[in-house]
Amino acid sequence: MKPVVGTLAIIGFGLIGSSIARAVRSSGAARRIVACDGSAAARQTIRRLKLADRIVSNPVEAVTGADMVVICTPVSAYARIARTIGRHLKRGAILTDAGSVKRAAIDHLAPHVPAHAHLVPAHPIAGTENSGPESGFAELFKGRWWIVTPPPGTSKAAVATVESLWRRLGSRVTRMTPQHHDRVLAITSHVPHLIAYTIVNTASDLESTLQTEVFRYSASGFRDFTRVAASSPIMWRDIFLANKDAVLEMLGRLYEDIALMQKAIRHDEGATLQRLFTKARRIRRGVVAQKQD
Amino acid sequence: MKPVVGTLAIIGFGLIGSSIARAVRSSGAARRIVACDGSAAARQTIRRLKLADRIVSNPVEAVTGADMVVICTPVSAYARIARTIGRHLKRGAILTDAGSVKRAAIDHLAPHVPAHAHLVPAHPIAGTENSGPESGFAELFKGRWWIVTPPPGTSKAAVATVESLWRRLGSRVTRMTPQHHDRVLAITSHVPHLIAYTIVNTASDLESTLQTEVFRYSASGFRDFTRVAASSPIMWRDIFLANKDAVLEMLGRLYEDIALMQKAIRHDEGATLQRLFTKARRIRRGVVAQKQD
Repeated sequence: MKPVVGTLAIIGFGLIGSSIARAVRSSGAARRIVACDGSAAARQTIRRLKLADRIVSNPVEAVTGADMVVICTPVSAYARIARTIGRHLKRGAILTDAGSVKRAAIDHLAPHVPAHAHLVPAHPIAGTENSGPESGFAELFKGRWWIVTPPPGTSKAAVATVESLWRRLGSRVTRMTPQHHDRVLAITSHVPHLIAYTIVNTASDLESTLQTEVFRYSASGFRDFTRVAASSPIMWRDIFLANKDAVLEMLGRLYEDIALMQKAIRHDEGATLQRLFTKARRIRRGVVAQKQD
Repeated sequence: MKPVVGTLAIIGFGLIGSSIARAVRSSGAARRIVACDGSAAARQTIRRLKLADRIVSNPVEAVTGADMVVICTPVSAYARIARTIGRHLKRGAILTDAGSVKRAAIDHLAPHVPAHAHLVPAHPIAGTENSGPESGFAELFKGRWWIVTPPPGTSKAAVATVESLWRRLGSRVTRMTPQHHDRVLAITSHVPHLIAYTIVNTASDLESTLQTEVFRYSASGFRDFTRVAASSPIMWRDIFLANKDAVLEMLGRLYEDIALMQKAIRHDEGATLQRLFTKARRIRRGVVAQKQD
């Protein structure tokens, strides 16, 4: 199959960036991959694993001559990167990203994208708890959703190119407004991660005998939470700060529902508990039916 | 290897009961397995899968002549079963169980165990979100912990027999007081399940557009919660009612920690968030080091 883009520059070469590189390679979706990462250790790994045709530390070098640029760094680095690369984007170049919050992504990127280039923000709903270029794999996006959130007036051709690229990696593609994206992700991803982080810390604050036991007996449900809580602390710090409103709203809703459960336990309301648990189980079946597990 | 027990009766043949049967079979830990389940459909599955030497619906028939009896039903059935089988336990028989709460288990079972038999309550820290006799597998207990909580004065020989049996299935065995067990499980298992159930329901109460999307984009963290929330509603209802005090205590601690996170987000305290997330990540490493993942 013909490549979708000529030169693809990937800025930030962690789990997502390196998985994109691997998937693009194995599907022949780009003619050439330029990897950019600020960490010397990461660049060495990229070199060792031969994940790119060219490896640079400077984003300006990365984007010069690139047909498409994908930013795969934590969101807090977006503004700095956009300010640095903006005027070096070539005519017709497409700037996209893989960040977990889309309103903030646009706020940080849009002001620095010149009129002759195109901003097409996007977010792949895929990941693992691992970080770094060695943790990526080509199949990460297979069958997963890639949400594209183009601002009004974005070039249709540019959006189509981005969508073709992600489809080539085996993803399903959908469009949303950035606002809607941020609410959906607040409840499906951000609040669950917040709770997972919290519950792991609550357990670790127990008396020290209990603490060892928490690790030892984690096969009882706890380990699923620790798995989620193993994700990159910096990436998650950025997500919560950048999606504050939606996260606080969803957390408020969750609080109300926990209070209901708590009250049912306190008052021995077995029927209420059973009803709530049965409802949750039905929803699990919905997730399985959507083949996202 | 020599069998650890002669006739083993398993009452309640779901995920745990049927996994015990499979593991006992494949390790030759008992000479004979008697399966007891109140559901005709379950009995048919047991027959089809040839999981036991004898299959009965009446617990009295199951325990008559049994050297060891393992109760693997939800905790709410314990008192009724114990009342029914108590005086039919043979001289020297051992009654054990696999329930997730141990104080309540002892409260329900102990009064009905005759002086000529031995009560050795226990709990395997292993499971999946699936239920029913077809969901079990022989390897479920391999490398997992089996917590034994014998009341003071329990026959040392009876405890040793129970421990040998579970070791034969590949488990590691440890002892605890029932009180301590219930606190450890409250934080490692019961509260995580409570939160998982709740968050799944919170998501399902959103406006209906959002709801479909919650399923669709569940690969973002949500699906791990739905997996936990897929467990048996009746079993979990019983657990929360039977371990109310410890669950409410641990939930109170969790609330305080969620409030800290919430405040850090509201006030844009990135450093606090990063510190809390980094701490949680370290704990994940502890779980991995304990080989429970």
